[in-house]
Amino acid sequence: MTNPSERWTEIQGGVTTPLKYQAAAISAGIKPGSTKKDLAILFSESPSLAAALFTRNRVAAAPVLVSRRLLSEARGSVRALIVNSGNANACTGRRGIRDAESMAELTADALNVPAGSALVASTGVIGLALPMDRITGGIPDVVEKLSNHGGSDFSEAILTTDTRKKSCVVQSLIGGRPVTIAGVAKGAGMIQPRLATMLAFATTDASLSLPLLKKALHHAAKVSFNRVTVDGDTSTNDSLFLLANGASGARAISKEDRWFDHFQHGLTQVCTSLARQIAQDGEGSTKFIAVSVHEGRTVRECEQIARTIANSPLVKTAIAGADANWGRIICAAGYSGVPFDPDRLNIALNGLQVCRHGQPTGFDERRAKELLQKPEVQIDVTLGRGRQSATVWTCDLTEDYIKINALYRT
Amino acid sequence: MTNPSERWTEIQGGVTTPLKYQAAAISAGIKPGSTKKDLAILFSESPSLAAALFTRNRVAAAPVLVSRRLLSEARGSVRALIVNSGNANACTGRRGIRDAESMAELTADALNVPAGSALVASTGVIGLALPMDRITGGIPDVVEKLSNHGGSDFSEAILTTDTRKKSCVVQSLIGGRPVTIAGVAKGAGMIQPRLATMLAFATTDASLSLPLLKKALHHAAKVSFNRVTVDGDTSTNDSLFLLANGASGARAISKEDRWFDHFQHGLTQVCTSLARQIAQDGEGSTKFIAVSVHEGRTVRECEQIARTIANSPLVKTAIAGADANWGRIICAAGYSGVPFDPDRLNIALNGLQVCRHGQPTGFDERRAKELLQKPEVQIDVTLGRGRQSATVWTCDLTEDYIKINALYRT
Repeated sequence: MTNPSERWTEIQGGVTTPLKYQAAAISAGIKPGSTKKDLAILFSESPSLAAALFTRNRVAAAPVLVSRRLLSEARGSVRALIVNSGNANACTGRRGIRDAESMAELTADALNVPAGSALVASTGVIGLALPMDRITGGIPDVVEKLSNHGGSDFSEAILTTDTRKKSCVVQSLIGGRPVTIAGVAKGAGMIQPRLATMLAFATTDASLSLPLLKKALHHAAKVSFNRVTVDGDTSTNDSLFLLANGASGARAISKEDRWFDHFQHGLTQVCTSLARQIAQDGEGSTKFIAVSVHEGRTVRECEQIARTIANSPLVKTAIAGADANWGRIICAAGYSGVPFDPDRLNIALNGLQVCRHGQPTGFDERRAKELLQKPEVQIDVTLGRGRQSATVWTCDLTEDYIKINALYRT
Repeated sequence: MTNPSERWTEIQGGVTTPLKYQAAAISAGIKPGSTKKDLAILFSESPSLAAALFTRNRVAAAPVLVSRRLLSEARGSVRALIVNSGNANACTGRRGIRDAESMAELTADALNVPAGSALVASTGVIGLALPMDRITGGIPDVVEKLSNHGGSDFSEAILTTDTRKKSCVVQSLIGGRPVTIAGVAKGAGMIQPRLATMLAFATTDASLSLPLLKKALHHAAKVSFNRVTVDGDTSTNDSLFLLANGASGARAISKEDRWFDHFQHGLTQVCTSLARQIAQDGEGSTKFIAVSVHEGRTVRECEQIARTIANSPLVKTAIAGADANWGRIICAAGYSGVPFDPDRLNIALNGLQVCRHGQPTGFDERRAKELLQKPEVQIDVTLGRGRQSATVWTCDLTEDYIKINALYRT
């Protein structure tokens, strides 16, 4: 047979595209005056396992603390997830914990699944108590609406300042049986990605042992979401969930064989697509930016330089202005902490070499401006000190970012 | 006698206010089409000692490399400094080094002082060769204009995107003799302070041994400029110079006695004032922000949290919008890396407590908005885990920052 890793095909759909998942969402009015869908449930019709990754922020929100505990107590045996937007339930003390616990319990009750098998996630404003009456009142309505076609409503309900829904679904065969992996995400505040609350929910009808499910999720996150949001430098609510219910009937993956590798490729493809979509939807952004650093000694040092460049507001404003200001790029690389030799460094912008061996190439400024007016900008930095490389995704920084963020809370 | 540390009085003036210093500046047209003053010389009429601190960016500009070498070879014996704005002479390879050396040599020649006793500094665009014909042609004109009244022109010539000149002069007695310390600075790009080129020049007619001059400068920078620009995370050109010519005739300071402490206080006062002026003149900023973190275990951890908050674009945009969004402040503290207990954390904005023990206080939002509309905003964060504190200065982040930085180079 051919290499199975090449055979994941992207299709339309959402978290209910894999077999035996249901979802629904309603507008519960969690943010006063808003009529946006803001309360959603994801449900697996059959028993499923779940893995998750949570924020490492010292100030973790109540739903993060509660879901982490529930997941651990249930040993990964999870049937449902309830999510709200409009309020992060962060910095809300003991009451916040009780509210998050109630959300999970009421959801498990309403779905008639074991107590502790429903998890919870929230996103929105920090420091306000949840309007629990609206959530309590809303849960039966959401459960009532659950269906195999609710994926689109689910992906809409989790959004905050996002301008569009983010999803990716891939299909392939495992041991001859069709298997689907789906993911949806929210997240948009990209000037320093670590401040954006990122929520992502993935579902699959493949069957994996819990250790392998965790392993696959960790690896996929490392090369996707963690290349937009910094590991350890995350918001109060960041969470990534993966449910696997085995409903495809495909052979169970219980060791690190070629089928595990195949599944890993599919999951990584979904997570990478979502991470790119998050960067593309940066608040007020007009351009998607990929920063690739090549010829480093380690992947880690390449990532460190790429992230420093991607986080530089001076680089991001230059790209917004279609200005080939590579001096800001080399300057950011210079304070990244990696001891490269500036005299070996090359920089290309959308394929046009602007800096060779640390000095300008005498490139055509008009041509550079044209290239930088494209909606996608690829920055390539070559270090000349090794064979490793890494890519980090971000977006440009525009006046609209300021407008959105100076006014968001009120 | 009373504590001498209390007796430094601020007066009007510039780098030529201390005795036996001359300065001048001209418009040499270093940036094509500009008529701004851009070439300046500072000169000590009598032999003087100098100490300096330079950027730690891996990509250090040619004038930094050249001045560092000259200062070391001359063992601190320095008579003059030449500075240009409009071109940073960074990423300019061997030619850049030769150009910086020429600038220093031509200046020493024109002033008839020993070769190697003139230093050089540059600020402006990266990656362009200096227009040496204009500099070579300009040096005699600047020397011609040198006078004891040239301090104001000097402080004007070093500016780039700054909207105003920055200076501070203090006077006191050392051993009964009047002594003056003066400083001027440029620097304005404050969204992430590490990207702003910061140049500062201080002069004094006090007399200190070279080791004590260095020691005083290091300490003063640590609690002033390094609280706006991150140590080790600086631009390609950052430089801070201090000249001491002893022309006051006051007793020489050669050991760490009370007179050294007294001088240290005066110099720290000058540097702190300049650092605050830099933060106040942040590009496009409308508000000065001081972030103070109290009750930490070490000064270092307080500074780390304060700097993380001060660098958060979400905090800075909230302050621009006069929005008491303390959730963004606690979130930034949470990813600073300091293991504080969120349930003990308090936050006050211009004296109004908005968060107590990690939760909202139920403060009056209208009152908070009024307080945040003031041109100076004091953020106080209390950790409840020690007795140390630290303050970092920054400014708000506005749409004008983007405008300035998307268009700066062209």
